[in-house]
Amino acid sequence: MKKGKFIVIEGCEGAGKSKQSVMLKDALIARGFDAVVTREPGGAPLGEKLRELILDPSYAPDAVTELYMYSAARRVHLNESVFPMLESGKIIICDRFVYSTIAYQGYGRGLDVDFIREVNRKTIEPLKVDLALFLDVPPEVGFARKGGADKSDRLERESLEFFGRVYDGFKAMSERGELVRIDACGEKAQTAEKILAAVLGAL
Amino acid sequence: MKKGKFIVIEGCEGAGKSKQSVMLKDALIARGFDAVVTREPGGAPLGEKLRELILDPSYAPDAVTELYMYSAARRVHLNESVFPMLESGKIIICDRFVYSTIAYQGYGRGLDVDFIREVNRKTIEPLKVDLALFLDVPPEVGFARKGGADKSDRLERESLEFFGRVYDGFKAMSERGELVRIDACGEKAQTAEKILAAVLGAL
Repeated sequence: MKKGKFIVIEGCEGAGKSKQSVMLKDALIARGFDAVVTREPGGAPLGEKLRELILDPSYAPDAVTELYMYSAARRVHLNESVFPMLESGKIIICDRFVYSTIAYQGYGRGLDVDFIREVNRKTIEPLKVDLALFLDVPPEVGFARKGGADKSDRLERESLEFFGRVYDGFKAMSERGELVRIDACGEKAQTAEKILAAVLGAL
Repeated sequence: MKKGKFIVIEGCEGAGKSKQSVMLKDALIARGFDAVVTREPGGAPLGEKLRELILDPSYAPDAVTELYMYSAARRVHLNESVFPMLESGKIIICDRFVYSTIAYQGYGRGLDVDFIREVNRKTIEPLKVDLALFLDVPPEVGFARKGGADKSDRLERESLEFFGRVYDGFKAMSERGELVRIDACGEKAQTAEKILAAVLGAL
């Protein structure tokens, strides 16, 4: 089925994923590629409804429930948007994907990582990811970029611990070779160059 | 955590699951047990919302998406309703459970049964099912009870084939010893007696 390419941009809050995804798309288009940026739930009505339920503060789904709801929204996004675009030969840049689920629900919330991998494998079938990049910005730096966390506040402190675990998850995946690490602490343009080089190498 | 008992009533359409669940509950209460009937999504608001989305004809989730949505609704039902009732020592009679997912999404819709078992295992953790009964009524008989299927109609015929596979799934599970088979083709009162005997034997 697959004629296009599927590229993933991952990382913690404040790592610059969304901006870098758009810069990458523009750079690819400027080189004559048919590139698009997407992000779950990606406009599919069922996916949007699921995302609304996940984010609705009146419910408090546990980590396994959250895993299923994110995975359902992911599957809908793939079926209704990604698979048709791949079929038409596009280069798809996906802002977050299965690795975020491993980092957030697994490393962050303590759900069995092997089980998440099993669910991810089935969820994306028959998709193969061509390249997955980890924009490496430590959570303290990312928070500072986003306006800063107040370390004297208990919830902010817990939140920094949570994001520390998420960051460790991304690092562990890059050490396993699942993600290609890109140092993203420097200037935007510099990071964009590194990303483009990695992507052009994979095309 | 568990002080109560968890009993499951499974079977195809028209097998009499809902009626028999209520008759079992009444018979147990008459014997002094604290019994209740439940059924997913069981009134939990997030579970109800998920069920609405699954059944909404404007979406067409594939089998794996459906599996995740049913499993999310199941997990919410367990967390918000079943686990607290077990904690309080009730005998819970659950009208359909994980075995229906194996029969419908697995045998019926062709999704990998081992994967469904893996998802089911994680979804119900740490629940142990005390007894799961399969009310054995072949689909032709069940359909006839429910008003009958017209075999000359293509969709009805497909539907009978689908329910034939679902039935085979339940039979296979009873052969594996996961479900205890109860012949449910006879009179309601007679079936109720067999069910009660099996349940009293397990309490």
